[in-house]
Order: sequence, then structure tokens, then C-alpha cells
Amino acid sequence: MVGLGPGSEALLTPQARAALAKSRVVVGYRTYLELIRPLLEGKELLASGMMQEVPRAAAAVERAAAGDTVALVSGGDPGVYGMAGLVHELLRARDWRRDAGIEVEVVPGVMALNAAAALLGAPLMHDFAAISLSDLLTPWELIARRIELAAQADLVIGLYNPRSSRRADRLAEARGILLRHRAPETPVGVVRAAYREGQRVVVTDLLQLLEQEVDMQSIVLVGNSQTFTFEGAMVTPRGYESKYDLPTAQGC
Amino acid sequence: MVGLGPGSEALLTPQARAALAKSRVVVGYRTYLELIRPLLEGKELLASGMMQEVPRAAAAVERAAAGDTVALVSGGDPGVYGMAGLVHELLRARDWRRDAGIEVEVVPGVMALNAAAALLGAPLMHDFAAISLSDLLTPWELIARRIELAAQADLVIGLYNPRSSRRADRLAEARGILLRHRAPETPVGVVRAAYREGQRVVVTDLLQLLEQEVDMQSIVLVGNSQTFTFEGAMVTPRGYESKYDLPTAQGC
Repeated sequence: MVGLGPGSEALLTPQARAALAKSRVVVGYRTYLELIRPLLEGKELLASGMMQEVPRAAAAVERAAAGDTVALVSGGDPGVYGMAGLVHELLRARDWRRDAGIEVEVVPGVMALNAAAALLGAPLMHDFAAISLSDLLTPWELIARRIELAAQADLVIGLYNPRSSRRADRLAEARGILLRHRAPETPVGVVRAAYREGQRVVVTDLLQLLEQEVDMQSIVLVGNSQTFTFEGAMVTPRGYESKYDLPTAQGC
Repeated sequence: MVGLGPGSEALLTPQARAALAKSRVVVGYRTYLELIRPLLEGKELLASGMMQEVPRAAAAVERAAAGDTVALVSGGDPGVYGMAGLVHELLRARDWRRDAGIEVEVVPGVMALNAAAALLGAPLMHDFAAISLSDLLTPWELIARRIELAAQADLVIGLYNPRSSRRADRLAEARGILLRHRAPETPVGVVRAAYREGQRVVVTDLLQLLEQEVDMQSIVLVGNSQTFTFEGAMVTPRGYESKYDLPTAQGC
């Protein structure tokens, strides 16, 4: 299970590159395979469409069980809303044994949330939560409850899968919950396609969030009560300012 | 601000490597500079000890303002409990202007939590929170409240800075809070020095957590109510099993 990071080869780790190089078969969502096309020459490719996660993971496990070296790729980190969990679920269903079965390795990657944060400035500098708004596999009630409690906890919140045609108003519902605990002027970053073609970085606030273009390639990052913006950057302080006198000087 | 990832060169991104290559000055915590020593030849190094974050960041900003190309390195991702926030705080204090001041860039990295998760299996597959137990800059009451609410939200929880000599019993307090909302047999992963010398990966549970060796180089990963272990792996299901019949077959 190989994490590709956000999509740029500059953020693909050498370990991920090496894992791809030694694989005979590469399995993945078509769009991700497209991003790493130069690395796939001579490989057998099993590409599939969105929401085909179960057959995709099953195919990877089948091929590995048949003796092939297989890379199953995920965008970002395969362990965060990626393919690592599903493969382990399949292995358990097959009574996999570590000492007797196929070798399994997770290659971590730069996750989408870190990539978005880097482009925004430093919004993730304090405790945070990652929550997916996708209710395909999780009841909306649980998602809503998590948003509510994370908001109460004053965690910075990264929203994955913030919008699809099917659930256009989940983001509006999430915003409504957040506004019960955070000021309307709480900074919000919207990052689309970080480090990929079509990248767009917007710093806005809870009040104006719904006026922004947000799609399934976007991450929405909601600041905590201390997050501030300046010069187009979104920054959550760690707390040094209250503890130390930060040095100031001109000319920077 | 350059993220080094967990410490192995195999997980250092090409973008981070390129940023180091083009920097004349490299600033960082001594231990991190040690990890990337082969990449530092011919550079001016400003190494400092732990808890010297403010002077370290200030030195980096000073040198950049004086015209040098400076890499300020962080382990993991510089945007997560790293140096990105502090630099932005210093820039604000200096009335930095994006169009007229020094150029600023954050190079994201594989964060410690992703590295730990990859070694454990797939514990982060569902919504999660990252919470630091360090009360140097954050009141313990706020940290405790965040743990409590994250536990109520059934988030997987990654605990950073789980222990130091100064606050050996914060981990015990955190465990006590967690046990109010999670079963004693909730899986817990303890990963020390992921992908570095001295790496140690332990899968245990809340009941036995305090019997494990946990230090400041460790990440403690607490499962949610669905997390399971098998064959030494720690896995949080995404929910496919309840929605699909996962294929089973022998021979894997």
C-alpha cells in the first residue's frame, strides 16, 4: 500500500518510488495512476474508477496471493481514508497469517491535510481533528456529532470529502454546527488539488465559506479560536507569544 | 521551513532535499540535523538544543532577512507542532509583507502520526484527532478537555509528546480520561522512533498502556470503538464490511 502524497513527484518519497519500481503490478484509482504515469512503464496496471475500492483492494490481494509483487496506490497517505485499512480487513477475512502469508507493507505519504496546510501557512500548529464528510460508509449523525465535539474542543478541523453532487449541503450542515461554537470570522482555508494541476488556495472565514467553490478534490481547514490570518496566510499560534516576548525587528 | 519526515532518508521528499540543497544556512534542533548530516556538507549550520524554538526561528528569520537562503528544519511535518507557526508569528511581529519581504515557503513532510500508523497497520483509517500532551505552552485543563471530547466523539487519537521526565503522569491522566469513554481492551499502539534507529512498535491496549515504555520520541495511538488487532496489526475499519460483503478466499 503505497502513499503517493498530494500528487506532485516532488512530494513522492524515495520509499514510495522504490516500492513502485519493484512492483510488477500497480493497482489504483485511474486518476492517481495518471499522476505517476512516468513511473509505470512496463508495469501491469489495474486501473479502476472512483468508489471501486473493494474490488480494487481485492484484486491487489489476489495478485499478491498469486505470487506477484503488487503496489496498491493511494493519494496522500494510504493510512488516512486510503486503502491500508481495507486491505487489512480483506486479509483478516482471508485468515492471513503474518508468518505464513504474503508480505504486507504500508508506505506512508504526505497526507492531503499537511499539503493543504503548507500552502495556507501554518493552520495545523495546534491540536486538530480530521473528519470526512462522506456519509457513504458512516452515518451522518456520527459525522455531525464528531464535528460538534471537535468544535467544542477548540480543535483545528480538517474536513475531507467536503462536497459531492450527492451531498451538496453536508458542508452547509457542518458549517451550521461549527457556527454554534466558533465565531463567524473564524478563518477557514479551502485548498483544491494541492501541488497538482488546478491548485487553488483560498483563505476565507466561516461566514463566507459557502460562497467558495468547494469540490471533492478540496480540503476545508477550519481554524480554532486562536487562528489568525495575515498577508494571505492562515496561522494557528502554538502559544509562544503568551509565554515569551517574541523578538521584533524591522527590515524583514 | 522544511519537513524532514520521520527521519529516514527514504521518507524525505525530493522537494525537501531540493530545499536543503539550495540553502546556504540550515537551522535546526541538533538531533534532526544529525539525521540528515550527509545532506549538509558545505552549509553553515545553526544547531540548537531542545526547547530553543524561539531563538532558533528568530535566527532563521534574521538570516533570511539579511539575504541568505535559509532552511529551518522540523522533524515530521513543519506545520504540525513544528516550526512553521512560530516563523509566521515572528513574521507578523516584524510587519512582514508578502510582496516586499523575504520569500517564505513551507515544505510539507510525512508527519510522525502517519509514520507510526504505517508501522502499526492501519489505525488511522477513520476520523482522528492529534493532541499533544505537552503543557509547556498549553494549559493542562485544555488538553484534558480535548482528550475528553475527542474520546466522546469516538475519534482515533494520536498523542504527541506523551511523556517527559517533567510530566511523567500526564499519560496516566490521559488514560484515565480515555477509560471513561473507551473499553479497557481498546487497542493502543506505541511507536518509538519510527523509521529511525531505535524503532520500536508495540500493540497493546488501554488497560496495559502504562506498563509500556513511552518516551518523548514516542507516539501513542489510541483506537476508536471499532479498532481491532490481528496478527500484530492495529486496524480501524472504514466501514466497508457493514456495507459490502467482503470477498473471502483461502491461500493468502
